[in-house]
Amino acid sequence: MASSASYENFEFYHASPSATSTPSATDTSGFSVRSDQDSFAYCRTNSEMSSVFTEESVYHDPSSPLAKSGGKGLPLCQASPTRLGMKQYYSHVGDEPDAEPEIDDIDLELDMMREKYSKLLLGEDMSGGGKGVCSAVALSNSITNLYATVFGQTLRLAPLPAEKKSMWKREMDWLLSVCDYIVEFVPATETFKDGTPLEVMTSRLRSDIYMSLPALKKLDNMLLQDILDSFRDTEFWYAEQGSMSKNANTKSGSFRKIVSLRTEEKWWLPVPCVPAGGISEKARKHLQQKRDNANQIHKAAMAINNSILGEMEVPEAYMSSLPKSGKACLGDSIYRHITGADKFVPEYLLDNLNIGSEHEALELADKVEASIYIWKRKVCISSMPNSKSTWNLKDLVNDKEGDKNHILAGRAESLLLCLKQRYPGLSQTTLDTTKIQDNKDVGQGILESYSRVLEGLAFNVVSWVDDVLYVDDQQKNKVLSI
Amino acid sequence: MASSASYENFEFYHASPSATSTPSATDTSGFSVRSDQDSFAYCRTNSEMSSVFTEESVYHDPSSPLAKSGGKGLPLCQASPTRLGMKQYYSHVGDEPDAEPEIDDIDLELDMMREKYSKLLLGEDMSGGGKGVCSAVALSNSITNLYATVFGQTLRLAPLPAEKKSMWKREMDWLLSVCDYIVEFVPATETFKDGTPLEVMTSRLRSDIYMSLPALKKLDNMLLQDILDSFRDTEFWYAEQGSMSKNANTKSGSFRKIVSLRTEEKWWLPVPCVPAGGISEKARKHLQQKRDNANQIHKAAMAINNSILGEMEVPEAYMSSLPKSGKACLGDSIYRHITGADKFVPEYLLDNLNIGSEHEALELADKVEASIYIWKRKVCISSMPNSKSTWNLKDLVNDKEGDKNHILAGRAESLLLCLKQRYPGLSQTTLDTTKIQDNKDVGQGILESYSRVLEGLAFNVVSWVDDVLYVDDQQKNKVLSI
Repeated sequence: MASSASYENFEFYHASPSATSTPSATDTSGFSVRSDQDSFAYCRTNSEMSSVFTEESVYHDPSSPLAKSGGKGLPLCQASPTRLGMKQYYSHVGDEPDAEPEIDDIDLELDMMREKYSKLLLGEDMSGGGKGVCSAVALSNSITNLYATVFGQTLRLAPLPAEKKSMWKREMDWLLSVCDYIVEFVPATETFKDGTPLEVMTSRLRSDIYMSLPALKKLDNMLLQDILDSFRDTEFWYAEQGSMSKNANTKSGSFRKIVSLRTEEKWWLPVPCVPAGGISEKARKHLQQKRDNANQIHKAAMAINNSILGEMEVPEAYMSSLPKSGKACLGDSIYRHITGADKFVPEYLLDNLNIGSEHEALELADKVEASIYIWKRKVCISSMPNSKSTWNLKDLVNDKEGDKNHILAGRAESLLLCLKQRYPGLSQTTLDTTKIQDNKDVGQGILESYSRVLEGLAFNVVSWVDDVLYVDDQQKNKVLSI
Repeated sequence: MASSASYENFEFYHASPSATSTPSATDTSGFSVRSDQDSFAYCRTNSEMSSVFTEESVYHDPSSPLAKSGGKGLPLCQASPTRLGMKQYYSHVGDEPDAEPEIDDIDLELDMMREKYSKLLLGEDMSGGGKGVCSAVALSNSITNLYATVFGQTLRLAPLPAEKKSMWKREMDWLLSVCDYIVEFVPATETFKDGTPLEVMTSRLRSDIYMSLPALKKLDNMLLQDILDSFRDTEFWYAEQGSMSKNANTKSGSFRKIVSLRTEEKWWLPVPCVPAGGISEKARKHLQQKRDNANQIHKAAMAINNSILGEMEVPEAYMSSLPKSGKACLGDSIYRHITGADKFVPEYLLDNLNIGSEHEALELADKVEASIYIWKRKVCISSMPNSKSTWNLKDLVNDKEGDKNHILAGRAESLLLCLKQRYPGLSQTTLDTTKIQDNKDVGQGILESYSRVLEGLAFNVVSWVDDVLYVDDQQKNKVLSI
């Protein structure tokens, strides 16, 4: 079976240490802008977000006009669409997706857009004092939270509900459109009527946005339309953990069994169920094909995310918080391995470390990344020209030290790469998180968050396919063993 | 005549030292967001803005989708309404103001709104690097520039052209709506069904916005509808300076004369013209009444503006730039006056200073304001508890010094007030400008700029009425003297 190799990483899918609160079925189809920064989670696998955003319904945000369906409307707030109005809007969109929108709906959309942008301008500081976050971080948080609102409750292979889909498209459109106005100046040639060329400066979309944004939009579209939408009328189905006994025989007339795949650590995920004889070969092939696609999308989104994160400035605060030496950072055992005279094989080192959980892997990644910057800093310092003395013995020693640190930084880099390949669902490291929080660049903020949430979604799709295939395998083995 | 008192200040109306560039009749009905900070001018009388914004047509902003009517559309920018599209939109709005807007128009409005908010989020840094201004300053600049775009070319008593009016209403609506989401938490009492009261915290509009914004909206409405709109089919008319000879006999059949009121210093203003026998008593009464109204609006807007500016924090940079002593700041002559043992009469001091221009008055206001903060700072320092020694002679001396500085600060304050009353059209002082540029509070930024531009408009209306009355007086005197 082609996908068997993926099962060795199975334990890490969704094994999120932060998902401790209980998701509830509150209505979250409303507005996704949230003012509290606590809702802001950076992680590669965004499945745990479901627990973040359901702790408080977005309708409880008292400053939202959507919350003012009662008699407490503020006198200045002319635009107060009610919750009912929202529902009407959504049901309209859901029922007739191709119909021309009504004037009322458009007024509502204008109001929602105004609210979204206003809150972004306030930078999450609803007191108006400007003590919140900058635009780059506000936009990044907004994309993260929108993803959680839209995808946080549909953790399964199924088309996204129509109202969630339109919310995702509409609000992402608002957030991404800021990129349309980020430009750079480039020299260009205009030609006079008589043929004389003229050098002029013209503006065009900034190159990183020009390169990455269309690609991300395409990946987004592929995930939603080509993959999730293809799972209509499937041979498998899902049972909610809590309502399992009730739903056990939903497809009446035939004997079907629910395979309780995960009992404790993945209790928040719906459990996939297959018919007694397993699913058809055609359905399996379809699943396999979509898994391959999602895997490619995951790799592409991850590559874009890594490249944007790589371009982001390393915050001063991170550099000044580093320990002085690589040894203090990595601990004796790893330090000895990495500085050993023998050929350095990162895979061998990782095998010997007995990494027991994603949490431990992330801790190691943080340490290794810190050591990279410690050694790189040492290379920088030792390569600085010694202005006081002329060429002397000290320079020779410095050169040798610099070479050694250069090699160590390289080894640490290969170790980090190897670690990330072994745990593809690893949360973001401390450096990445610090970069995202300190980022001032609006373009990078949008590209990073968009690629991060798409990476998370693609990763989840792969794991959901694996879940179904695993359950199908178990079911078929059971039938054979009878 | 009731308005004769105003003529003594006549020289200061529009006598703007910065209006040196030539206004041209470029089309500015498009978008008002501008990326360059140079366009940012703070002044009480905003009449000189006409020269600021016409130096470069807003259509030349290369990052605006409105500029992309040619073949250079960027691939990512899906929303590219053309200049033609804009014109169609405006002509539609102008022709049928009460008609239901078309879907195309609404799409266009959505696009324009998106562009406006996106550029605000970029903080005027179109590179996306986040090195521009904060939201508070971006919104303040945007209101200032919108005012210049809308009112900069209609410097006369006449209804605002329909397309300018709708632009003003539409874009101010976007900018002001940010205020709808600025809230503060206040304790409130809810009652259970059984009658038990419960203390809860609820959010409501921040009190300064709750107080001032409806008032400003009302003043705005009064200026546009009650005053400017009332000047339809007037007995007086305007002649453009450049086309005077051509337009001299526009109302053919009767002999009319153009009174060239201002030759040099107000050349950018259209010249009011009256019939040979002057205007009717009814028209004069109407003018007089509207002048009184505008004067009241001016006072109200100025009061709000002063109170917002007073609430704004004094920037660190301003305090650290102050000279050490009030004497060094004010110069010997004024310092001697202000520290004299006699009763201090600010009017008497001002009479003796021979202030020759608005520029000199502003320079004096800056010095006096600086001296207020120098003396207040000294009061603060001398009143700080002397932790090292116990009560002693030094404290007594400190107390006396503190009292003296307190009195001096009070005298300087009364001098500044007197100066501002004598020159009501004075530009904003260095402290005010520094406060506006350093401001981080979104609510204060919006209220300050809105009240400032309304104050400027009301001030201009008063002066335009005075211009017509002055010309009418001259004409009637001429008829009498024949």
